[in-house]
Amino acid sequence: MRELYLDDLRVGQRFVSDLHALDEAQVIAFASQFDPQPFHLNEAAAKDTLFGGLAASGWHTAAITMRLMVRGGVPVAGGLVGAGAEISWPQPTRPDDVLRVESEILEITPSRSRPDRGMVKVRSETRNQRGEVVQILEARLVVPRRPSTADSG
Amino acid sequence: MRELYLDDLRVGQRFVSDLHALDEAQVIAFASQFDPQPFHLNEAAAKDTLFGGLAASGWHTAAITMRLMVRGGVPVAGGLVGAGAEISWPQPTRPDDVLRVESEILEITPSRSRPDRGMVKVRSETRNQRGEVVQILEARLVVPRRPSTADSG
Repeated sequence: MRELYLDDLRVGQRFVSDLHALDEAQVIAFASQFDPQPFHLNEAAAKDTLFGGLAASGWHTAAITMRLMVRGGVPVAGGLVGAGAEISWPQPTRPDDVLRVESEILEITPSRSRPDRGMVKVRSETRNQRGEVVQILEARLVVPRRPSTADSG
Repeated sequence: MRELYLDDLRVGQRFVSDLHALDEAQVIAFASQFDPQPFHLNEAAAKDTLFGGLAASGWHTAAITMRLMVRGGVPVAGGLVGAGAEISWPQPTRPDDVLRVESEILEITPSRSRPDRGMVKVRSETRNQRGEVVQILEARLVVPRRPSTADSG
């Protein structure tokens, strides 16, 4: 896939990622390592919690979202380097979810101090197989400008 | 450790987590699965990037932070359930870092519609062994009120 420099991006530009099929084993493996709470580890224990059943850690949803973005979901040059983000989880990610990420360029700000780069704000909605939004991420990415010596095509 | 209900928290209250010692194998394992970019996978490839050397994925730092918070770093009743967060990475997390999380309660907002809970905003700084902040997280957590039938001690 062609990689996009700051100069190639425009506000409103949209990208859609591939799919990621989650399953219970992935949910439990991630939670065991990073978010060992009953509602992320065990279906029976999760029943009586706020989640009403096994749910993926929000940070697992974030990590899968990053994987989908890196694997072509947001094809910017130099890779995806985030300075920061706002993140929310409007509803739980479930073990049988099939996730995709839909991204849109919100803002493009060339750097004043560093002429070789700029900051791009990207809104990425992670949706399940029913189209329901399980995560909203607004990330600030550092994106390089096209090198002046490079072919502009 | 005693678990704290909404009623037990106060603005300005601080908590410090245990330590987590990172290493290159952990950095590469996480990145391979969730953030497969050269600067998170390979020291030599990372040299010529913005990072100037191998760095952990920001989402790996976030996941380790969650582990440290869950394991006693922020001992709220019912577990740590996040509605959303702002996150930033002021500098890279490196393979030889030993991380800890210092958290402070910023806001406590009892729910108007759900008398059994409230929203708590917590600022958590993840620091390395030199005290440098590698991540700032401001998370909105759902925290239960002490059940009215429970012993208040």
